[in-house]
Amino acid sequence: MALMTGEQYVESLKKLNLNVYMFGEKIENVVDHPVLRPSLNSVKMTYDLAQMPEYEDLMTATSHLTGEKVNRFTNIHQNTQDLIRKVKMQRLLGQKTAACFQRCVGMDAFNAEYSTTYEIDKAYGTSYHERFKKFMEYVQKNDLTVDGAMTDAKGDRGLSPSKQADPDLYLRIVERREDGVVVRGSKVHQTGITNSHEILVMPTIAMRPEDKDYAISFSVPTDSEGIVIIMGRQSCDTRKMEEGADIDVGNFNFGGQEALVVFDDVFVPNERIFLNGETEYAGMLVERFAGYHRQSYGGCKVGVGDVLIGASALAADYNGAAKATHIKDKLIEMTHLNETLYACGIACSAEGHKTESGNYLIDLLLANVCKQNVTRFPYEIARLAEDIAGGLMVTMPSEKDFRSKEVGHYVEKYLVGVSSVSTENRMRVLRLIENITLGTAAVGYRTESMHGAGSPQAQRIMIARQANLAHKKKLAKAIARVK
Amino acid sequence: MALMTGEQYVESLKKLNLNVYMFGEKIENVVDHPVLRPSLNSVKMTYDLAQMPEYEDLMTATSHLTGEKVNRFTNIHQNTQDLIRKVKMQRLLGQKTAACFQRCVGMDAFNAEYSTTYEIDKAYGTSYHERFKKFMEYVQKNDLTVDGAMTDAKGDRGLSPSKQADPDLYLRIVERREDGVVVRGSKVHQTGITNSHEILVMPTIAMRPEDKDYAISFSVPTDSEGIVIIMGRQSCDTRKMEEGADIDVGNFNFGGQEALVVFDDVFVPNERIFLNGETEYAGMLVERFAGYHRQSYGGCKVGVGDVLIGASALAADYNGAAKATHIKDKLIEMTHLNETLYACGIACSAEGHKTESGNYLIDLLLANVCKQNVTRFPYEIARLAEDIAGGLMVTMPSEKDFRSKEVGHYVEKYLVGVSSVSTENRMRVLRLIENITLGTAAVGYRTESMHGAGSPQAQRIMIARQANLAHKKKLAKAIARVK
Amino acid sequence: MALMTGEQYVESLKKLNLNVYMFGEKIENVVDHPVLRPSLNSVKMTYDLAQMPEYEDLMTATSHLTGEKVNRFTNIHQNTQDLIRKVKMQRLLGQKTAACFQRCVGMDAFNAEYSTTYEIDKAYGTSYHERFKKFMEYVQKNDLTVDGAMTDAKGDRGLSPSKQADPDLYLRIVERREDGVVVRGSKVHQTGITNSHEILVMPTIAMRPEDKDYAISFSVPTDSEGIVIIMGRQSCDTRKMEEGADIDVGNFNFGGQEALVVFDDVFVPNERIFLNGETEYAGMLVERFAGYHRQSYGGCKVGVGDVLIGASALAADYNGAAKATHIKDKLIEMTHLNETLYACGIACSAEGHKTESGNYLIDLLLANVCKQNVTRFPYEIARLAEDIAGGLMVTMPSEKDFRSKEVGHYVEKYLVGVSSVSTENRMRVLRLIENITLGTAAVGYRTESMHGAGSPQAQRIMIARQANLAHKKKLAKAIARVK
Amino acid sequence: MALMTGEQYVESLKKLNLNVYMFGEKIENVVDHPVLRPSLNSVKMTYDLAQMPEYEDLMTATSHLTGEKVNRFTNIHQNTQDLIRKVKMQRLLGQKTAACFQRCVGMDAFNAEYSTTYEIDKAYGTSYHERFKKFMEYVQKNDLTVDGAMTDAKGDRGLSPSKQADPDLYLRIVERREDGVVVRGSKVHQTGITNSHEILVMPTIAMRPEDKDYAISFSVPTDSEGIVIIMGRQSCDTRKMEEGADIDVGNFNFGGQEALVVFDDVFVPNERIFLNGETEYAGMLVERFAGYHRQSYGGCKVGVGDVLIGASALAADYNGAAKATHIKDKLIEMTHLNETLYACGIACSAEGHKTESGNYLIDLLLANVCKQNVTRFPYEIARLAEDIAGGLMVTMPSEKDFRSKEVGHYVEKYLVGVSSVSTENRMRVLRLIENITLGTAAVGYRTESMHGAGSPQAQRIMIARQANLAHKKKLAKAIARVK
Repeated sequence: MALMTGEQYVESLKKLNLNVYMFGEKIENVVDHPVLRPSLNSVKMTYDLAQMPEYEDLMTATSHLTGEKVNRFTNIHQNTQDLIRKVKMQRLLGQKTAACFQRCVGMDAFNAEYSTTYEIDKAYGTSYHERFKKFMEYVQKNDLTVDGAMTDAKGDRGLSPSKQADPDLYLRIVERREDGVVVRGSKVHQTGITNSHEILVMPTIAMRPEDKDYAISFSVPTDSEGIVIIMGRQSCDTRKMEEGADIDVGNFNFGGQEALVVFDDVFVPNERIFLNGETEYAGMLVERFAGYHRQSYGGCKVGVGDVLIGASALAADYNGAAKATHIKDKLIEMTHLNETLYACGIACSAEGHKTESGNYLIDLLLANVCKQNVTRFPYEIARLAEDIAGGLMVTMPSEKDFRSKEVGHYVEKYLVGVSSVSTENRMRVLRLIENITLGTAAVGYRTESMHGAGSPQAQRIMIARQANLAHKKKLAKAIARVK
Repeated sequence: MALMTGEQYVESLKKLNLNVYMFGEKIENVVDHPVLRPSLNSVKMTYDLAQMPEYEDLMTATSHLTGEKVNRFTNIHQNTQDLIRKVKMQRLLGQKTAACFQRCVGMDAFNAEYSTTYEIDKAYGTSYHERFKKFMEYVQKNDLTVDGAMTDAKGDRGLSPSKQADPDLYLRIVERREDGVVVRGSKVHQTGITNSHEILVMPTIAMRPEDKDYAISFSVPTDSEGIVIIMGRQSCDTRKMEEGADIDVGNFNFGGQEALVVFDDVFVPNERIFLNGETEYAGMLVERFAGYHRQSYGGCKVGVGDVLIGASALAADYNGAAKATHIKDKLIEMTHLNETLYACGIACSAEGHKTESGNYLIDLLLANVCKQNVTRFPYEIARLAEDIAGGLMVTMPSEKDFRSKEVGHYVEKYLVGVSSVSTENRMRVLRLIENITLGTAAVGYRTESMHGAGSPQAQRIMIARQANLAHKKKLAKAIARVK
Repeated sequence: MALMTGEQYVESLKKLNLNVYMFGEKIENVVDHPVLRPSLNSVKMTYDLAQMPEYEDLMTATSHLTGEKVNRFTNIHQNTQDLIRKVKMQRLLGQKTAACFQRCVGMDAFNAEYSTTYEIDKAYGTSYHERFKKFMEYVQKNDLTVDGAMTDAKGDRGLSPSKQADPDLYLRIVERREDGVVVRGSKVHQTGITNSHEILVMPTIAMRPEDKDYAISFSVPTDSEGIVIIMGRQSCDTRKMEEGADIDVGNFNFGGQEALVVFDDVFVPNERIFLNGETEYAGMLVERFAGYHRQSYGGCKVGVGDVLIGASALAADYNGAAKATHIKDKLIEMTHLNETLYACGIACSAEGHKTESGNYLIDLLLANVCKQNVTRFPYEIARLAEDIAGGLMVTMPSEKDFRSKEVGHYVEKYLVGVSSVSTENRMRVLRLIENITLGTAAVGYRTESMHGAGSPQAQRIMIARQANLAHKKKLAKAIARVK
Repeated sequence: MALMTGEQYVESLKKLNLNVYMFGEKIENVVDHPVLRPSLNSVKMTYDLAQMPEYEDLMTATSHLTGEKVNRFTNIHQNTQDLIRKVKMQRLLGQKTAACFQRCVGMDAFNAEYSTTYEIDKAYGTSYHERFKKFMEYVQKNDLTVDGAMTDAKGDRGLSPSKQADPDLYLRIVERREDGVVVRGSKVHQTGITNSHEILVMPTIAMRPEDKDYAISFSVPTDSEGIVIIMGRQSCDTRKMEEGADIDVGNFNFGGQEALVVFDDVFVPNERIFLNGETEYAGMLVERFAGYHRQSYGGCKVGVGDVLIGASALAADYNGAAKATHIKDKLIEMTHLNETLYACGIACSAEGHKTESGNYLIDLLLANVCKQNVTRFPYEIARLAEDIAGGLMVTMPSEKDFRSKEVGHYVEKYLVGVSSVSTENRMRVLRLIENITLGTAAVGYRTESMHGAGSPQAQRIMIARQANLAHKKKLAKAIARVK
C-alpha cells in the first residue's frame, strides 16, 4: 500500500486516539468536527490528486529507498526536477483548496533530516541516518501524513532556551532512559496536527553547548501518551458551526487549522531519535528545514493567490466593472506579484544542489529571497482584491438573512450586480474574497505568509549571510580602480 | 438640552422603534444586543467626551445658528480652525474606541448640504437652504446622531441609475404628493444606522437630466414606516455572542456595524426635502460630502492607528523583543505612515476656504490625496503590526481553553512571553491586534479605509480634475524655453 | 533699502571678493561663470519675485524688529500663517526655477538661532540673543542672502568630533582672543555660498562637554580672509560650458551649486558669535534648524515636482500618448505623491507653536515625517517621469547634431513626435526631464532630497523620539482591557 | 576561427568604415574615441572572458549548426540549461563591466529569428529559415558582434506605421528589386552599433495587412552604404574627454553608448532578408525577441546591481558607518531586490520550452514578470545606494581640484572618511556610485531598465495576455461553489 486513497486516509485518521481540546472542551470526533473537517479535507486532497493520472507526474515520485511509487509529499528529492515539481505540486494544491494543505511541513522536515543526520553520523559515528531512512520507509510504505514540528513556545525572545524562567518553554529532554528519552515542552502554530499520523519534532534555533537537553529531534505517533492538542481559534472559525451559513463560510470545503501541541512527558524510543545533544547540528537542521519551507511558500501561496485573483476577476464581472481600465490593471498587478513569488520558488529549485547525503537542497539565498517576498506580496494582492471586490464583501447580510422569509427578498433585490448573475453567486464570490483576506483563510494567506517558516527578520539574517558582500566589494573595487 | 449625556443618548435610542434584522431574525432589543452594543458604545463616546472639560475645545462648538454650545458633530464649520479641530476630534475618538464611531457621516453631510442647498436656491429660487437650517437647529437642539446615507445598491456598475434592470437599484421617488414624496430603494454600507435618530439621504453620483427621480436628498427618522434595516455580518462578529470569550473579542467595549437599509416606499414630508430633481447639483453635493468625508479619514483612522501602534509596541514588550532594532524601526515606520495620514487631514483643513453660504470647505485636492493615502497606509501599518505581533495572534487557543480546568494550565504555561507579564495580558494585546487586522475592526480599519468615502479610483478621478496640468505644463514650458 | 531688486543683488555680489576654485583653477569672475551663473539666477529670483505685486503676500513680510517690509527669506516667523506662507513661497520658487534657490538655509538658520540664543541667554545670562537680533536687523535692512552652514566634513562617522584622527574634521575654535575667536575646519555641501553675502555657521550635531571647542556658531562675510571655496562638480555640469548646447542643458537659466567651504583660520569678532562653548545647546540649535529645513522641503521640492509633472505631461502630448489610460494614471500618481509632500509641509506649519523667544517653530514630528517622505517620493516621481518620457531622453543626439548641416535633417526628421510639434520643442522638454532626473538638477531633486536637512535615518530617530509610544501603549491597554 | 580574442575583435572593428557623427562632427577614429572606447571595451569583455578557462562553461557553447565551439552570444539555445547559462553569463558580464555590454540584443534576435523564420516557412513555403541558418553559420564562424535593431522612430504613438505624417517614421521598403530591397527609416536607442559588424533589423510592432512594406527583417554590415550613425549623448558623457578627470568618470574602462541609426536608402540583398511582407508574423518576431530580451535583464542588470551593492558597502566602510544597523539593513534590502530579479531571470529560463524549430524559448509570462520588476527594483536599489553613499557623491570637488597645488590639500584633508582609507579611494568609490545612479551608467541602469526590451506597459499587456484569468475564475468558482 504505497498510495492511500482519500477515503483510506480518512479511515486511517479515525483509528487515531487524539487528545484534542477546543473552546475548552475535549473533541470526541475529531474527524467530523465542522471546524476541523475542512482542514482534514485539504490534506485529503493530497491523497485524492495522487490517484489521478493527470497529476501523476506532479503528485507522485519513485522512492529511491524502495523503488516504489510514493506520494511526492513523502519523497526525498533526487534532483532539481524533483525540487521544481514539488513547487508545482504545491501551487496545484493551493489552487484546489485555497487553503493550507499542511503536508509540506513533514516533507520539508524529511529532506532536512535526511541530509543533516548523514552529516552528524559522519562527524560523530552515530547512526541517525540509518534510523531515519527506516523511518522514511515506514512513512512511504504507509503513505503517512507527518506533522513537522519546529516552533517552540519561546517565552522571552531575549533569552536562550536554558535561560528562560520556565525551562520547558523550549521542548527538552527531562529524562534519559536506556530505551529512549522523555520529553517535555510544546510546539506552537502546528498546522495539520489533527490530520497527521506522526509528529516529527525538530529544535527551533541554533544552539550552544549549554542547551544540550534542547537539541533533540524525533518522531512519535500523534496519539502518543502525554500529547495534548489545543486548537487555536481563527478569524471567523465558528461560522463553520452555524447552521445555514454555508455561503458565509466562504470556503465551505477546505481550510487549515493551527494548534498548540503540548508534550507532557512523552516517551520517545531510541529508534525514532534523530538528534540527541549534538547542539552544533541544531542550526544546520533548522536552516535546511527553513530553506525548504521558504521554497514551499513559492508554491502554495501562489496557488491560493491564483484563486484570489480568479475570485477578484469574477467579482469585477459580477459588479459590471470588468471593462474598467483600472480594474484590469489591478488584476495585472496581482498576477505580476503572484508570478514573482512563483519565479522565486522555481529559481531556488532550479539552482538547487546535491548534499553529501545525496538528496537535493534548494539554493538557500534564493529560497530566503522567495519567502521574504511572501511576507509582502500576498498582503498587497489581498489589498487589491479588497479594492476590486468593493465594500460589500464586509457589509453583506448573512446567508440567514438571504434565506429569510421576511427580508430575503430585499437582499436578493438589492445585492444583485449585473442582472445576468444571481445574487447568491455574487455573495458566494464576495464571501470567498472575505475568507481569504479577513476570514479563516487569511490566517494562512496573510499571517502565515508573514511568520511561517520564520519571520521576515529571520530571512534577512540569512540573506545577509549569503550575500557575499566581500565578493561584491571586490567587483566594485575593480571597476572603481581603487588602489 | 444642547448636549446630551451618554446615558441620555442611550435612553433616547431606546425610544426608537427600529425595524432591524440580523441572522434572519428581527432584533427586539437593538440597544442591548451583544453584537450591536459595542457599536452603540462608540457613538456614546461622542456624547461622553463632550461632557469632559479637557475635551471641550475639541468636542464642542458654538452654533452659528443658535449661539448655543453644541456637539462638534452637529456643527457647521465656521473657519479653518473648526476644520482642524474636527480632524483632531476624530483622532481622539479613534484613540478612545479603536473603531468607527459613526457620527462623522452625518456631520459631513450637514456641511455638504449646507453649502449646496444655498447654491441651488440661488440658482432656482427654491428654499432648501432655509429648510435645511431649520433641520440643523432641530439636530443641534436635540443633539441628535444622524446617519448620512449615500451609497446606493448600484447593481450593474456599467449602467446609470435609470438604465438598471431594476429601477430601484438607485433610491428614487416613486410617488409625488402635495405634502411630500414617497421613495423606494436602498442604501448599503450604512454604519451607525441603528444608533441614529435620523437618516439623511443623498444621491450617490453625479446625474443627468433623465435621472431626475433619482436626484433626491432628504432626512427622515430612522424608525419611519417602510424603513427596514438588515445588518451586515462582520469578520468574527459572533464572538461577541459567545459566553466567556471576552478576551477573544479583542475590543470588548467598542465596535462599528454596517447595514443594508431598505426604503420600502417611505414618505418624506416637504419640509425635510433638500434636493428634488435639480440633477446638476447632485454632483456638487456628492463631491462636497465626499471631500469632507475624505478629510475625516485623516483623523479617525489615525486614531485607530495610534491604538494599533501602541498594541504592537506592547506586543513587542511582552514578547521580550522591544530592544531589537528591526522592531524599533517597524514602529517608526508605522508612526511615520500614520502621521503622514494625519498631515494630510490637517493640511486639507488648514487650506480650507469659505463657501458662498458662509461655511468652510476643505481643500478638495488635498482631501482626496488624504483619502488616497488612507487606501494604502493602514494596510501597511496592519502588515507591520502582524509582523511585530508574531504568529500567535492567529493561532492562539480560545479564552475558554485558557479558562479550562483540563488544559488552561498548559495555555498559561506555554503562552507566556516575558515572565513579568501575565499570559492573560499578552493574550489580550494579541487579540486586540487580531481584532484590528483581521477581526471586526478590520472591516473598518482596512476595507472601509479602502472604500469608505469612495473607492480609490474615485479619488484618482478627483485628483486628476484638481491637478491643473495646464498650469504645470506652462511652468515646464517656461523652464525648458519651449518656443 | 529693505528690498533689493534682482539687479541690485547681482551688483552687490560683484563687490564681493570671493576665493573660489573649480576644476583646479581660481575663478576670477564668479558672477558670470557659465557653470555658476544659473545658480545665481535662482537666488536672484527670490529678489525679482519680491518686487512683483502679485507675489507680495508670499514673498514679503513686515519685520517685527524694524516694522519695515522685508523679504520673507529674512523674516522671523510670527505665527503659523507665516510658516504656511513660507512653504508656499518655496513651492512658488521651485516652480519658477526648477532648481534649488538656496536662500532657505539662511532663513531656517535665522529662526533656529533666534529662539535658541534666547534660551541660552536665559540659562547662562549671555547676550547672544541681542547680538543675533542686531545681526538680523543688518540682514533685513540690507536684504542679504546668508548661507546657513551646518554639515562638517565628519571624517569617520563612528567617532565624535574630538575623537577624529584630524581634529579639524569638525569646525572648531583654534584660538580665543579678547575680541573674538579664530576657527578652523570646513563645511561641506554648501549650496549658495557663492551667491551669499554672509555665512552663518552652526554645529552639526549634539555635543558632549569634551567637544567644547566645537560648540560654536557665528556669522562672517563670505569673502573673509581664510575662507576658501571649492566648487563641487555636478552631473552634466560642463554642458553649461559647451558652445551651442543650450537645449542639452535642459534648464538653461537656473540651477543650484554646492561647494566645500574651508575655514583656514578665520577670525570671528565677538559681536557675531551666537554660541560659544554651551555644548548642551548645540543639539537644540541643530534640531530646530533641521526641523525648519525639513519643513522647507515640503515646499521647494514640491515646486520642482510641479515642473517635472508638467514636463512629463508635455512629453506625453508630444509623443502622442496623452490619451493612454496608463499615462494619465501615472500623472495622477505623480500628482498624488507631490501633493502628499505638500500636505506634510502645510501640516507641520499649521501645527506650529510659539517658542519662548516669541517666534514660531513648526511641529517637529510632522516636519520630520515631511522630510522622510521627501527621501522617497521624488525618486518615485522621477521614475514615473522617465517612464512617461520614453528612452529618447537619454539616447537623443546633441544639439550640435541637431544643428549640423550633415546630419541635422535626420535628427529633425526622425525625432519628431506628433506632427504638430517641432522636434526642437520635443527635445527641449525631454532634456528638461533628463536635467531633473539625471542631470544637474537631479543633484537637488534626488540626492539632496535624500540627504539635505539630514539623512533619512536622522528623521527616523526624531520620529522615534516624538512618537510618544508610552501614550499609545496606554491607549491600547485601555481598549484591550489589560489588567 | 570560431572564437576571436579581444585584440582580434578590436582589429576587426578597425577595418569597418562606419559613418558616425557625434556633437555635430564626423568621428574619424571610432575605435579610439574617448567617449566611445569604454563602450567598445564592454563588448571586448565578451571576447576576453570567452578565452578564460574558468568561464568556458558560461561563455561558450557547442554550435548545433557546425559542431564547433562558439561564443555563447552567437549560440542558438538548445535546452533550458542553455537559457540558464545565458542569464549567468550576463550577470558575470554585468559584474565585470558595470555597464551594458551590448551583445545581448543580437543574441536575442538570433533566437527569435531562428524559430519565427521556421514557422513562416512552414506557413508560406518560403526559405527564410535556411537563409537565416546560413547567416548564423557566418556569424558563428567569424565570431561577430551583431546589433539587433528593433525600435523605430515611431513619431506619433497614436498612429500606426502607414498612418504617420512621414511614412519613414517606421523603417520600410521603398524599392523592391530582383536581387533585394531598398529600405529607408531609422532605428533609435541602438546600443553597440559602433561595436558591431552587422545590424540585424526587425519590425517593432505587430502589424496589419496595410503595413506590408513595414514588415521587413534583414541583416546588413554596419558600414553599408546609406547607414548613418548619430550618437546619443549621455549624462556626464564629456567627462571622458576631460584631461585629468579619470576619477570623475566613475567607471573609467567600461560603458555603453546609444545611437540613432539612419537607413537612408540602404540596399539589402535577398539572402539576408528574413521576413518580407508576412505581416502577421511581425508580432511573433517582436514578442519572442522581447521575451528573450526581458529575460536578459534578469542577468545583466543583476550584475550591475552586484557592483552597486559592493560599491555601497565600500562607501559605508569608508564612511565609518558599516556597523550601523540601518546601513546593514539597506544592504540586505538591495541584495534582496537584486536577487529577486535574478530569480525571475532563472525561473523564466528553467521553465523554457522547445519551439517547433528546435531551439528553446523562455516562459513568456515569467520573462515579462522579470522585466516588469526590472522597471522598478533598480530604481530602488539606486535610491538606497544614494542613501548609503551620502551627499558627497554629488557635491565632491573635481579630480582637478584634488590634484591642484592650491587647494588639493584641502580636498585631501577634509574629504577623508575613516583614517585608514585614502581620500582618493573614497572619491573613486563615490564617483562609481554617482556613475551608476546619475552618470553615464545611469542611462543603462535606470532608463534602459525602464524602457529597454519594451516599456513597462508593454509587459503589462503581455502579462494580461498570459495570465489565463479564465482558468483562475474556474478555480475560484469551484472553491466558492458558484452555481
